[in-house]
Amino acid sequence: MNRFCQIFDVKSPIIQAGMIWCSGWKLASACSNEGILGVIGSGSMYPEVLEEHLTKCKRSTDKPFAVNLPLIYPQVDDHIELIEKHKVPIVITSAGNPAKWTARFKDSGIKVIHVVSSRKFAMKAELAGVDAIVAEGFEAGGHNGREETTTLCLIPDVRKAISVPLIAAGGIGSGRAMLACLNLGADAVQIGSRFVASEESSAHQAFKAKVLEAKEGDTSLTLKELTPVRLLDGSFAKDVREAYQRKADPEELAKLLGRGRAKKGMFEGNLQEGELEIGQISSMIDDIRPAAEIIHDLLLEFQVARDEQFTAERYMF
Amino acid sequence: MNRFCQIFDVKSPIIQAGMIWCSGWKLASACSNEGILGVIGSGSMYPEVLEEHLTKCKRSTDKPFAVNLPLIYPQVDDHIELIEKHKVPIVITSAGNPAKWTARFKDSGIKVIHVVSSRKFAMKAELAGVDAIVAEGFEAGGHNGREETTTLCLIPDVRKAISVPLIAAGGIGSGRAMLACLNLGADAVQIGSRFVASEESSAHQAFKAKVLEAKEGDTSLTLKELTPVRLLDGSFAKDVREAYQRKADPEELAKLLGRGRAKKGMFEGNLQEGELEIGQISSMIDDIRPAAEIIHDLLLEFQVARDEQFTAERYMF
Repeated sequence: MNRFCQIFDVKSPIIQAGMIWCSGWKLASACSNEGILGVIGSGSMYPEVLEEHLTKCKRSTDKPFAVNLPLIYPQVDDHIELIEKHKVPIVITSAGNPAKWTARFKDSGIKVIHVVSSRKFAMKAELAGVDAIVAEGFEAGGHNGREETTTLCLIPDVRKAISVPLIAAGGIGSGRAMLACLNLGADAVQIGSRFVASEESSAHQAFKAKVLEAKEGDTSLTLKELTPVRLLDGSFAKDVREAYQRKADPEELAKLLGRGRAKKGMFEGNLQEGELEIGQISSMIDDIRPAAEIIHDLLLEFQVARDEQFTAERYMF
Repeated sequence: MNRFCQIFDVKSPIIQAGMIWCSGWKLASACSNEGILGVIGSGSMYPEVLEEHLTKCKRSTDKPFAVNLPLIYPQVDDHIELIEKHKVPIVITSAGNPAKWTARFKDSGIKVIHVVSSRKFAMKAELAGVDAIVAEGFEAGGHNGREETTTLCLIPDVRKAISVPLIAAGGIGSGRAMLACLNLGADAVQIGSRFVASEESSAHQAFKAKVLEAKEGDTSLTLKELTPVRLLDGSFAKDVREAYQRKADPEELAKLLGRGRAKKGMFEGNLQEGELEIGQISSMIDDIRPAAEIIHDLLLEFQVARDEQFTAERYMF
């Protein structure tokens, strides 16, 4: 049996990514109820908000779910206490050193998955004792690595370097892409952008509508001098481009970015001033649907793509 | 039967990429003899050099081969005359408008494959009447598109937009990656970097040795203000990075690049001053081998990865 499913007690080897402003208790519990690992994105939540989401999530599903915890989060200690208090079974750490917290989580009986974007940090995470590793490619939405390695190149390389279960992330929004990543050696996949455009996501309707319009080439990785982030084209992305054209320095870029732009764009639907974080695969998203339907169709496509290898003419050579 | 194999009369749906300074008659004929489409990279050849390679290639194989022709090449007319004179069966055009030449090639009985890096240009190429389209992702070595779309995201998107055979390129150096790309909807794959490190490639030994050393994160897409190009880290790549740090303008970058750097690096093995073009997948290349062995092992791995889907535990869920 798939070891990711075994370790994390889920039916299908899929993680719904814990995305800031998009992944609250509604999306997480809907995904967990459908047999994948639902995740609450705590990076955009104050501790009291996280506690509310934890309570509601536990009320809405009896299946395992996880909390995504950026380790650079200012009130990370409060979040960790809440995760322990509410006996969250799995935590997905990112943006920080896993060596610092992994032992504490494990001592509390919490399983740890760590997110990396390079082979080097995958090896460090394994040494820190994590239970599984998400390797996320350049095409992913939101914050991203500096190496710019794509999922197609990153997964086989990380697979060679570590032995714990490996979850592929970045550019995966379909059953075909899931199959491709398993072919490359991943044990599971993490899917973000596709769930932004779900009914249960807490993204603002205006942002969801904008995601449906996205075409190939409409996102770009930018603000690399601060923290690299993949943004959907729009008013703020244009301001950033113009800042680069006038050769703005990092201080000016930081000032332009300011604070709260992600909330403004993704949660409040302010398409002019807000930051719109989404992956390249947004070009293939054409509808907003319930998470359960998205998962159902994705698994169906996975199966079709698998079977097709014995009937489709392109495999006959 | 696989329509790529049918149309281009090859055994396996693989193109050996026509890379400047690396793909001469030796590599092309070795690949064609092994049942894939061997390609002469004419972008680094004077017409008299191309003619020599055409003559030798025809002497070394009775199988179909192709010439890669960058349409911005200064003496493109001379090259086209040679291609017609020597009855080259297939031409792979890139870096230019396929509408300009496709009809002429087709009138001469030459099949045309065009290389693109975006959905938009794939649609234009199909309208121009090409026989097949190579869609090349961000992870590819050498010159690259401005959209920065990765192979994992580009292939399904282009697949939806065109109906002619689609060849995936960028990040493919193994049988697993080939299977992944076919599962995404590609009819065939184009492989470059892996063949740079073949015995028959005309890349300099010093460059080949440098490719074997490459680790994940060691390449980057740069010089985007001129023509985006993926380079291996090294002395010249460092000079470029420093130029960016002092906010060099495009004129200064063009002056720094100068002329002949690709030849210097890849063909003459000058690792200090030369430009070293290679893809991200170079991190997975560990040996220099005869092209026939590379192809043999790649097809074997493809088959293993395919069969594994029905025995490996990670597929059991």
